[in-house]
Amino acid sequence: MNVGPLYLVTDRSLTRGRPLEEVVARAVQGGVTVVQLREKEAPTRSFVELARQLKALLALSGVPLLINDRVDLALAVGADGVHIGQEDLPYPLARQLLGPRALIGLSVETEAQVLAAEDCDLAYLGVSPIFPTPTKTDTRGSWGLDGLARVRRLSRHPLVAIGGLNAANAGAAVTAGADSIAVVSAICLAEDPREAATTLSAIIRQALAARRKERPV
Amino acid sequence: MNVGPLYLVTDRSLTRGRPLEEVVARAVQGGVTVVQLREKEAPTRSFVELARQLKALLALSGVPLLINDRVDLALAVGADGVHIGQEDLPYPLARQLLGPRALIGLSVETEAQVLAAEDCDLAYLGVSPIFPTPTKTDTRGSWGLDGLARVRRLSRHPLVAIGGLNAANAGAAVTAGADSIAVVSAICLAEDPREAATTLSAIIRQALAARRKERPV
Repeated sequence: MNVGPLYLVTDRSLTRGRPLEEVVARAVQGGVTVVQLREKEAPTRSFVELARQLKALLALSGVPLLINDRVDLALAVGADGVHIGQEDLPYPLARQLLGPRALIGLSVETEAQVLAAEDCDLAYLGVSPIFPTPTKTDTRGSWGLDGLARVRRLSRHPLVAIGGLNAANAGAAVTAGADSIAVVSAICLAEDPREAATTLSAIIRQALAARRKERPV
Repeated sequence: MNVGPLYLVTDRSLTRGRPLEEVVARAVQGGVTVVQLREKEAPTRSFVELARQLKALLALSGVPLLINDRVDLALAVGADGVHIGQEDLPYPLARQLLGPRALIGLSVETEAQVLAAEDCDLAYLGVSPIFPTPTKTDTRGSWGLDGLARVRRLSRHPLVAIGGLNAANAGAAVTAGADSIAVVSAICLAEDPREAATTLSAIIRQALAARRKERPV
């Protein structure tokens, strides 16, 4: 299962007060192809309840749900996989607990991490952050589009670009090598998350098509 | 497997700067019968590394290791079980993920929670907090010894008393109905954690013996 070109990472503090389920539902209508539930502050109980709601909602559309970090919650709600960072459960343990079919994505912040990830059976590498971003502050600097292009040359994995991406720069990130664009605020904070997703989706798919034309596989 | 009479809950910020493994090792030498690793702030990666170290250390003595909240980490390191609070993963999900042999302890803060827990297959109820305590601030008031005695009458489960317990009041908590006394600072902050555990262990065992004499089963 592929995560597809438009990847939504949730943030309950960035929904303009709207319920997260509503924002996610609208975003999926607009073309989001995978959703990662990220809850760094919430108690486990409310995290698991939200995960269950999103899983039910996404099951209707076939869009996979990934859980940030908490492998137990992914197992508990029957999510499709997890996204792990370098400070989360190590990949081999996550894979062992989740089994061979789960989608596991891994954030990379350095070239050494990119190379170390080559042996892992990953759904994607999260190249993070591409640009400086206020929604994730525990990272070590940003890759930029040049860095993204370097990761593209180093890695066999699909690449999800994340961090400071929006309709204005998503196309350039795809041209530099991203297979998928992850956003938080570009959809969650949008007045109409569906319309924002539709626009982003069209831009990304167009850039992917242009790249395939230029560099046929 | 029983958790035994002296239950250590870890807190890395309360070790007087000593490595947690050292404090735990000394405490086990002094008679601690179960260890719960609690890490509310640490990144998952360092939590799992610490859990692994403690599991290796405790395996030598046969003292069970419980992990606070994180079922995935318990599975990852082969811990003996988990301690869950009312805001953590619901009991049925934790049991399903951990299997029938795992030890699961549950914190209760109200009588309604005590009654709801009767249907669960628990290693113990954590009656929390008995007295007000600075190491756990997210609770709803304290049970007191009267409250602990009420829980004793309501529940079929072994009771672990936690919150503000030390050598001065552990005996009274046992007399009121506790089968086990959980401490954080009474051992972690002690100049000699081994000696503190030895003293507590003797007090608790004496009170348990006196209770058995008074109310033979």
